[in-house]
Amino acid sequence: MQFTASQLAQIIQGVVEGDENVSVQSFGKIEEAKSGQLSFLSNPKYEEYLYSTDASIVIVNSDLVLKDKVKATLVRVSDSYSAFATLLDLYSKLRMSHHVGIEAKASIHSSAKIGKDVFVADFAYISANAEIGDNVKIYPGVFIGENVKIGDGTVINANVSIYHDCIIGKNVILHAGIVIGSDGFGFAPNPDGSYAKIPQIGNVVIEDNVEIGANTTIDRSTIGSTFIRTGVKLDNLIQIAHNVEVGENTVIAAQAGVSGSSKVGKYVMIGGQVGVVGHIRIADFTKINAQSGVTKSITVPKSSVTGTPAYNFSAMVRSQVLMRGLPDMLKRLEELEKEIELLKNKN
Amino acid sequence: MQFTASQLAQIIQGVVEGDENVSVQSFGKIEEAKSGQLSFLSNPKYEEYLYSTDASIVIVNSDLVLKDKVKATLVRVSDSYSAFATLLDLYSKLRMSHHVGIEAKASIHSSAKIGKDVFVADFAYISANAEIGDNVKIYPGVFIGENVKIGDGTVINANVSIYHDCIIGKNVILHAGIVIGSDGFGFAPNPDGSYAKIPQIGNVVIEDNVEIGANTTIDRSTIGSTFIRTGVKLDNLIQIAHNVEVGENTVIAAQAGVSGSSKVGKYVMIGGQVGVVGHIRIADFTKINAQSGVTKSITVPKSSVTGTPAYNFSAMVRSQVLMRGLPDMLKRLEELEKEIELLKNKN
Amino acid sequence: MQFTASQLAQIIQGVVEGDENVSVQSFGKIEEAKSGQLSFLSNPKYEEYLYSTDASIVIVNSDLVLKDKVKATLVRVSDSYSAFATLLDLYSKLRMSHHVGIEAKASIHSSAKIGKDVFVADFAYISANAEIGDNVKIYPGVFIGENVKIGDGTVINANVSIYHDCIIGKNVILHAGIVIGSDGFGFAPNPDGSYAKIPQIGNVVIEDNVEIGANTTIDRSTIGSTFIRTGVKLDNLIQIAHNVEVGENTVIAAQAGVSGSSKVGKYVMIGGQVGVVGHIRIADFTKINAQSGVTKSITVPKSSVTGTPAYNFSAMVRSQVLMRGLPDMLKRLEELEKEIELLKNKN
Repeated sequence: MQFTASQLAQIIQGVVEGDENVSVQSFGKIEEAKSGQLSFLSNPKYEEYLYSTDASIVIVNSDLVLKDKVKATLVRVSDSYSAFATLLDLYSKLRMSHHVGIEAKASIHSSAKIGKDVFVADFAYISANAEIGDNVKIYPGVFIGENVKIGDGTVINANVSIYHDCIIGKNVILHAGIVIGSDGFGFAPNPDGSYAKIPQIGNVVIEDNVEIGANTTIDRSTIGSTFIRTGVKLDNLIQIAHNVEVGENTVIAAQAGVSGSSKVGKYVMIGGQVGVVGHIRIADFTKINAQSGVTKSITVPKSSVTGTPAYNFSAMVRSQVLMRGLPDMLKRLEELEKEIELLKNKN
Repeated sequence: MQFTASQLAQIIQGVVEGDENVSVQSFGKIEEAKSGQLSFLSNPKYEEYLYSTDASIVIVNSDLVLKDKVKATLVRVSDSYSAFATLLDLYSKLRMSHHVGIEAKASIHSSAKIGKDVFVADFAYISANAEIGDNVKIYPGVFIGENVKIGDGTVINANVSIYHDCIIGKNVILHAGIVIGSDGFGFAPNPDGSYAKIPQIGNVVIEDNVEIGANTTIDRSTIGSTFIRTGVKLDNLIQIAHNVEVGENTVIAAQAGVSGSSKVGKYVMIGGQVGVVGHIRIADFTKINAQSGVTKSITVPKSSVTGTPAYNFSAMVRSQVLMRGLPDMLKRLEELEKEIELLKNKN
Repeated sequence: MQFTASQLAQIIQGVVEGDENVSVQSFGKIEEAKSGQLSFLSNPKYEEYLYSTDASIVIVNSDLVLKDKVKATLVRVSDSYSAFATLLDLYSKLRMSHHVGIEAKASIHSSAKIGKDVFVADFAYISANAEIGDNVKIYPGVFIGENVKIGDGTVINANVSIYHDCIIGKNVILHAGIVIGSDGFGFAPNPDGSYAKIPQIGNVVIEDNVEIGANTTIDRSTIGSTFIRTGVKLDNLIQIAHNVEVGENTVIAAQAGVSGSSKVGKYVMIGGQVGVVGHIRIADFTKINAQSGVTKSITVPKSSVTGTPAYNFSAMVRSQVLMRGLPDMLKRLEELEKEIELLKNKN
């Protein structure tokens, strides 16, 4: 991929200032970009780099007044950040645009239904009765179980495993190594202390526009479905247990875990390494700070909590500071005990 | 799969009440089941749903006295929950019963020994001198290293990696993405601050009836074996380090980790996101609460601990409550200091 | 593999004491070794086992004075531990020495460049314009994206996924299930509360002599690179977010996570399950205790911290002890309040 300044200006409706024919092949931050790269300046804090950057082209705001000479060709637009984002997006799409067709070493069951303009790489395995929508991309090593449905425009990266009966929506992005629909962790104790497996015969339903990070795991429901609602964003190495529901547009950072049957509301933000116990509810718009352990339902929307067990954010932060002051508190307590003793003896 | 009420009644030795020929294809909870689904009523708390459910068939206890009209066909048995569990189990087994045979695109080394009635999917890779027992199922993308032994009846889901020399018992269930036998994390510092790898030439031994969750990792021993004993149940994304032993029928929840050379006893319960340091012992029947950090051996069986560093459960819970009360304690301390000052001045 | 005592003695320049022709096939710890195994005695604490071991050959220090009869053949060398380590290393290399060549069911794009003496297993997938160095080993189920470069001598275990444009150095070891170069977790909020994906078009650069544990994930940078510097050792199930830099010879234990844009210094030691927030710096030689949550930059080299939020190690340990003493402190406080009341009434 290679674009000249005038080609870029046409795409983002900008005006070229400098060499129209200079071309770029990749992107760089203004403070570290090299020749052949495209960069942008939006935040005035970074303006100094504009005068020293090696980037070949820089997108800037149309109202920028230059204070010094600039080596790069400029493309002026009304909103440089949004124009740059547009180009990043275009680049990402172009990068995958030639991933179309079914490669020779894929394994597709004869009963599977495959949509239009699909990419199925070598070593992808599509089981009986699976249904793959249009424009879906399936990378090498992906396993798709029986009866699985994948919506239009979804991208499934390498080595993802999707167990039987699960349903994936449209325009979902699944990163490499994800497991969807493995058995929930359900066992009943036997009289001898061993455990009997409780069959997990439900599924996982992932709605549209969800993105899920690498090596995250989402277990199938015992009966019924584990739900990941529209627009949810999950980071890497997250555990979502059986029968959980994660509400619309909720965002969960890496290595967090939600235990069985808990319902996380909409627009919730969960920090990294958070643990949520089973069978509770988290109200909409709740913020849970990183590494917290949530042990009770949070019923008031827009709550903000931290710590283990998780508690009101500001109160807990104050307690954490005081905890570090405990040696001092103890000293003051001992001092008081001595003084009281003195006073008692005096009396 | 499809069963009529009279077929089901025969399997679970029940009595049909209603239409003998109505059929079901799947399962549902009584409060959300649809037409064509089978449900059950065991807990009297849910009885109200019996009179409104859309389930086509409901399994109930034989002594249930109806308080209203029921649309569904009933099958009466002595223990409705256990009859339902029997059917779930049957369903799970039937679901996989046609997964038999060796698919054309599997890769099996000529020196590997393969048992009877085995399933080996396309893109499964079985290395030299591996031994696969009878009735084993190996799904796509599974890697089985040299000299690995897999016991009868074991199921290995998609994209599991088992390194050379590891031994897996009978009737084990390995969920997708698990890694067994990767090198333990062992390095010796060089004089210049870099690290030299200590070769990890042991293996992992997993005994019978173990179930392991998705993307969990179990490292091989430096020398000797890392052991997962009979009946252990591990959830998803767990880390078991080299030279660890996890005792019989111990249960570990998701994202917990056990560091090198620690020995976890039998019938232990470890909560989610717990960390256990290296080179310690955990007594039998210990309960470790979620997110705890265990830093010392637990020598008394049936101990219950929580917190980081982990400590007696009830004492720690009291301390955690008091920690939240620290701002109040500080206020009371300051009040006392003032009063003492007053008293001292008075005297 | 099989070696006689005299063959071993030649390799490690030792002197045989006993049967020169006895042979060993594997290794064992002196306290549990069996016939046919090689063991060593270095630590005098274990000397008692020398007189009872079933090992066929034991490597001992040349100055060892026997106190009893020994069944095993001895090989005397100046440093028994280092001689044993040499043999372990040799064994590890021999074990993989026959993994050379390109297996028939691999998928290699015609534009990929493949070095000399490479191993590419069945079901490994090498994309367009990838460059694979000499002596690289690529196991089954590995996905290598477009334009990826792999340095000489690197070993990539089963089911690793490396996204496009990433660069892996020389003599790197990647364990099974690792994901390198998945999209960073970057989203911009839309006015309606949903999120727009920020394209992640950077890459991951892993320098020489790095080892990374099973199922660890390393996200690509938004722009530019996520860096894992020379000699870094990462354990299993670690999360390294986008734009992070992990400095030379830093060691990170299992299940730890480093959030976006943070810079971890050189020779840092990070314990298991540690969380590091985004956009901070960790000074060289810092030690971070297991399960800590680092919320602020650590600017002083050789710092040692623990707890959440992480704090000076010794001070925090004292506070943790005092926290367990809070019920006692509260009692003493209440006692003082009563006594003050008494004193006030007296006056």
